[in-house]
Amino acid sequence: MEGSDGITELPAEMEWLLAREEIAALLHRYAWHFDRNEPEQIAELFAEDAIIDYGPEFPPIRGRSRIAGAIRPGLQERFAATSHHISNLLVVPAGSHRATGTAYVYAWHRYRDGSPDGYLWGQYRCGFVRDVEGWRIQEMVLAVAGTVDFHRAAMHPIGRRE
Amino acid sequence: MEGSDGITELPAEMEWLLAREEIAALLHRYAWHFDRNEPEQIAELFAEDAIIDYGPEFPPIRGRSRIAGAIRPGLQERFAATSHHISNLLVVPAGSHRATGTAYVYAWHRYRDGSPDGYLWGQYRCGFVRDVEGWRIQEMVLAVAGTVDFHRAAMHPIGRRE
Amino acid sequence: MEGSDGITELPAEMEWLLAREEIAALLHRYAWHFDRNEPEQIAELFAEDAIIDYGPEFPPIRGRSRIAGAIRPGLQERFAATSHHISNLLVVPAGSHRATGTAYVYAWHRYRDGSPDGYLWGQYRCGFVRDVEGWRIQEMVLAVAGTVDFHRAAMHPIGRRE
Repeated sequence: MEGSDGITELPAEMEWLLAREEIAALLHRYAWHFDRNEPEQIAELFAEDAIIDYGPEFPPIRGRSRIAGAIRPGLQERFAATSHHISNLLVVPAGSHRATGTAYVYAWHRYRDGSPDGYLWGQYRCGFVRDVEGWRIQEMVLAVAGTVDFHRAAMHPIGRRE
Repeated sequence: MEGSDGITELPAEMEWLLAREEIAALLHRYAWHFDRNEPEQIAELFAEDAIIDYGPEFPPIRGRSRIAGAIRPGLQERFAATSHHISNLLVVPAGSHRATGTAYVYAWHRYRDGSPDGYLWGQYRCGFVRDVEGWRIQEMVLAVAGTVDFHRAAMHPIGRRE
Repeated sequence: MEGSDGITELPAEMEWLLAREEIAALLHRYAWHFDRNEPEQIAELFAEDAIIDYGPEFPPIRGRSRIAGAIRPGLQERFAATSHHISNLLVVPAGSHRATGTAYVYAWHRYRDGSPDGYLWGQYRCGFVRDVEGWRIQEMVLAVAGTVDFHRAAMHPIGRRE
């Protein structure tokens, strides 16, 4: 399997399996750094023009350079500990340098102020983009199936049929 | 790597990685459509002669054409929201067009009648079959490690050694 | 893609995807056998010189031959049921026969003595080694983000930044 330039190329299916692994790793690193209170390392997972929408009561965070500052207060002051368990990844390629994808998240939160632990069952709905350095998250919307004792009331719904 | 017909073939290990990804996606779509209350789309993930055993107090659902009707009442009338978190996938190939597999499920359920949220920790034990359109679930048995405030009493056990 | 010995070789990226799948399966089998109370089968997943550190109040278990005996009492006498949900796998290759990796675990525990169910949100931090029979776990350290009603007080922390 050699390309027209004589360089050995992987079949497209294999390229795609590798891309899917890198995309999964992005979300796993997101959880890892979130749970370790490392907002700067979270920001590095995103594309320069990324949008994060944890809304609806928060305006979306626009641009990688604003991510660390926007999430630092919550990580630092609200939570004493968190754990974000990512699963159910579905990725859809959109050309060789873009993809969309969804993953489930089950998140546990312990609060600094002694409030009861908060639980969230939700989904990350993402766009991904590949640049010369690898894959990055370009868009992340948090949709929520439900919560228990969570500190936020309004969340984007997952769109369950009535 | 060209096959006897001159068509480039993937090595068997690669075919198997691709199959495993498709099988994982089947279970992730099962959760996705379950949690969005879309019984018709759930049915499409199954083979025509599929069997689902949520038992033991329910008789198995036999045949794809009966799946949507069998699960619609629960999705529609019992649950206000659910979230099914799939993990721990183990797949065993059985030839090129069949496989068996197990996955864990952690499921959260909110009830329409205001009962306390129900929690389930279990396993899907599945058979998979590949036809011209791709992989399908042919058999699904729900085995359960335990529950809290779940609306069902008897479940197939996971077989923990006494 | 033939190697210098004329045997068809997989590209390195593909070898690595296969290795990653085998490593994931090791952790999924660990959960499977733990939750079925099968300590002998757990031991078989580890290298002969393996170290497991569930500490800090327990000394590390050193050597595969000591694993089953060390974990059997807890599985047999303390727990009536457990479910270990593994996710967030990140694997880093270290040559062709070694790797390090982390995975998240969400674990539910039902106690024989009727204590309230115990919950744990944590991480397995592992070293893996490949011998002629395949990949094995060589090192496993349990780090914990938090617990609710768990029977142990002191656990290795995940290293959240203050």
